[in-house]
Amino acid sequence: MLTLYDHPLSGNCHKVRLLLSMLGRPYESVFVDVPNGANRQDWFSSVNALEQIPVLKDADYVVRDSQAILLYLAQRYGPAWAGSNAFEAGEIAQWLSFSANEIGNSLQPARVYYLLGEEIDIDLAQRKGMRVLEQLDRHLESREWLACGRPTIADLACFPYVGLCREGRLPLDDFASVLAWIGRITALSGYVAMSGLPGAATRR
Amino acid sequence: MLTLYDHPLSGNCHKVRLLLSMLGRPYESVFVDVPNGANRQDWFSSVNALEQIPVLKDADYVVRDSQAILLYLAQRYGPAWAGSNAFEAGEIAQWLSFSANEIGNSLQPARVYYLLGEEIDIDLAQRKGMRVLEQLDRHLESREWLACGRPTIADLACFPYVGLCREGRLPLDDFASVLAWIGRITALSGYVAMSGLPGAATRR
Repeated sequence: MLTLYDHPLSGNCHKVRLLLSMLGRPYESVFVDVPNGANRQDWFSSVNALEQIPVLKDADYVVRDSQAILLYLAQRYGPAWAGSNAFEAGEIAQWLSFSANEIGNSLQPARVYYLLGEEIDIDLAQRKGMRVLEQLDRHLESREWLACGRPTIADLACFPYVGLCREGRLPLDDFASVLAWIGRITALSGYVAMSGLPGAATRR
Repeated sequence: MLTLYDHPLSGNCHKVRLLLSMLGRPYESVFVDVPNGANRQDWFSSVNALEQIPVLKDADYVVRDSQAILLYLAQRYGPAWAGSNAFEAGEIAQWLSFSANEIGNSLQPARVYYLLGEEIDIDLAQRKGMRVLEQLDRHLESREWLACGRPTIADLACFPYVGLCREGRLPLDDFASVLAWIGRITALSGYVAMSGLPGAATRR
């Protein structure tokens, strides 16, 4: 049985929810109330010493970090989502790092700033966010998917915080190739929404 | 023939130099004068639109990002350095993200602040850096290597900026388990130094 330590508003958790759904794997979701500090409580820091979500448990195996979870799940349960050789693995890994670093330092904190009021340099995050959107848009001008000519965990790793970037007051609608890519992702079999992403019920 | 777009003071490039040396693969180093903006010149942005080093070329194949390069090289030329199944791949990938995100937002910018005078929030980078060192030290208290019970690209991805962290005025000597791990890495066959790391010629 798979267990996901999870929060409904976390884009990092949503990467994993997307792949699990697309792979048709059932899982148990354990709510971790991160905005109220549950991730710093003993019960959770014994699960992940880094005190971050998501964490995935698969029987005895525990893996933290959304990118690592995607790689594990793809290699174990859906090899077409991962690379099938060194060339593809390297190509995909570039975008996993892009998600962890470039997106994780721009679109993601900009959203948290407006959503949770976290104190950050919002101007810097938004400037970096514009650069991320420009880079993705240019890359996607001539491609349907980020890597390997097919949907992979590269797309799922980058998608949530890009799709949610309006919540960080970034002008997503200015980036036509990114919008078209988002449209292709939402059309994939097993796509699930979250609040703020296409297909979500309107927020009350 | 392998070509590495490279700078002698870049810890990210050094991750790749270490693995290439440990694998016994010769390569050509192309100097990219990043501190003087060469990475933003057309000749280089056509190699990597993200304008970052390192970039590796292997015949027609081009891969950017130090973590992705490590994964490509290991899978292609030294499989023992990568994961041999989904469990190991996930375990290693956790530390590749730790390098891209946690280390890349703490030890790395703290060093650049003192080395190149880049304007950043140095207090924040150093606070995060202390946390990184504490987390690594706790993890390594009971382990020789970061993942899989053997040296892997997880160690090489994290090592350079940890080994260089005194240049960011972090108290490396307070972390005995990290120091012991550094000692084990420098004892690996094929280890090469860079300025600021063990084994380097004293700086003039």
